[in-house]
Amino acid sequence: MAERTFAALCEAAWKRGASLCIGLDPILERIPEAVSNESDAARLEAFSMVIVEATRDIAAAFKINSAFFEAHGASGWRAIESVAAGIRERAPSAVVILDAKRADIGHTNEAYARMAFDAIGADAITVHPYVGREALRPFLERADKGVIVLCKTSNPGSGELQDAIVGDEPLYLRLARSVAAEWNGNGNCGLVVGATYPEEIRRVRAAAPTLPFLIPGVGAQGGTATEAMMAGERVGGGGVLVSVSRDVLYASSGADFAAVACAKAQEIDMLLRTALVQ
Amino acid sequence: MAERTFAALCEAAWKRGASLCIGLDPILERIPEAVSNESDAARLEAFSMVIVEATRDIAAAFKINSAFFEAHGASGWRAIESVAAGIRERAPSAVVILDAKRADIGHTNEAYARMAFDAIGADAITVHPYVGREALRPFLERADKGVIVLCKTSNPGSGELQDAIVGDEPLYLRLARSVAAEWNGNGNCGLVVGATYPEEIRRVRAAAPTLPFLIPGVGAQGGTATEAMMAGERVGGGGVLVSVSRDVLYASSGADFAAVACAKAQEIDMLLRTALVQ
Repeated sequence: MAERTFAALCEAAWKRGASLCIGLDPILERIPEAVSNESDAARLEAFSMVIVEATRDIAAAFKINSAFFEAHGASGWRAIESVAAGIRERAPSAVVILDAKRADIGHTNEAYARMAFDAIGADAITVHPYVGREALRPFLERADKGVIVLCKTSNPGSGELQDAIVGDEPLYLRLARSVAAEWNGNGNCGLVVGATYPEEIRRVRAAAPTLPFLIPGVGAQGGTATEAMMAGERVGGGGVLVSVSRDVLYASSGADFAAVACAKAQEIDMLLRTALVQ
Repeated sequence: MAERTFAALCEAAWKRGASLCIGLDPILERIPEAVSNESDAARLEAFSMVIVEATRDIAAAFKINSAFFEAHGASGWRAIESVAAGIRERAPSAVVILDAKRADIGHTNEAYARMAFDAIGADAITVHPYVGREALRPFLERADKGVIVLCKTSNPGSGELQDAIVGDEPLYLRLARSVAAEWNGNGNCGLVVGATYPEEIRRVRAAAPTLPFLIPGVGAQGGTATEAMMAGERVGGGGVLVSVSRDVLYASSGADFAAVACAKAQEIDMLLRTALVQ
């Protein structure tokens, strides 16, 4: 088997028409009662793995949102490690994204890169751009790993800094150009662009024609999967991972939650495939 | 005793003339052999606590750099929790800063705030500004806790985004004004400004006359404590936490490392006090 790399995993997913990323944001209060287990962290892990199992034939990627695990302390951290390993075992062709939004000075990023890529074994991590490329080098130098840079985030107030006009364009667009032209020397960069801003997704795609996009914000946050897909796809297709979390995870609170999550994921997957061929 | 708040802890430290923040960035390979323990994580914790013990009469604050613990997985996370609790017990008047540089959309930041302030019990956390104030509300709403926003970071390449000209000023300065005027409604914001940029510290101080500054980058990174202090202090004094990590932690690799770290901390503390009265 060829070496497991972020880029190769993405291209293989797009080749089979898969673009759906399942976001694992487990919230204790919303985990169905059918998931019983000994501890809070065990519930997070068990619930996440049922979702992985239910959607593994559909998902192009799984995105572990570290915050929801970290809130449970060391045992939550252990659950991140178990879920990442579980995905690699049960869904070996899916990209494992650690959505941890890290970034510090270079010396510290060396430790964060070890955490994400070595200790947890993620294929990609999300990072903040504010410290600049030089500081992010410990991530960028890991050519087999994906470095997905926050560009235009999905939240209502993302414009405060991201839309600031620099020269003749908003900061997020200038950043997209820099990532495409300069940060991507190892061909391992991606961009986070929120589904809640389809027009901005189009502008970022024009500025970064080939970079993988991770597009969160579909469903609970108000973005639509089809629109995100059509705005983000590359010329020739592919290039997009549309991330859906709450709409799949909590599609049912009953004992049937796994089957309903699977059906919901299939429904969105079909929307994405249809959007692509339009 | 009055309620423990970030603001009150800072003001009390400045009142007693203390401005030194000890940065806990434990790197396994650099921990003196005299610190023996069973596991890697136990070494991180034991070393950190010896440093806390050696400097607790001097330090205004301790800054736990989460990356260096996270690189060791769940047991490293447990060490963060133990060190935070250990500082509160052994140095109850020191500010406990979780230097984790988090930030996501609001829904996710609720989980990060629980992690930092409830699970770990930190008095303050460092955050990225890129998502904007709206997303950071779950941190900002915790009026008793400090939210220390990255403004001008100490790394050589920090200018890539931070110095981008927006209107007639660099982004970092515009951000400083926004944090001072708008984000700080609960009086709990601070700013990170790197010691490696004393002129920028001066400009940020002019833009944000009263906000607490966390100033890293002294020593190994090339900034000087005295210059940072003089550039950052408020009119009337105080307002600055100068963070030193490697210069104190690894001042000696011998069995005398605790005493040497203490002496080094005293030396820097004296420099800071002298700078203040100049």
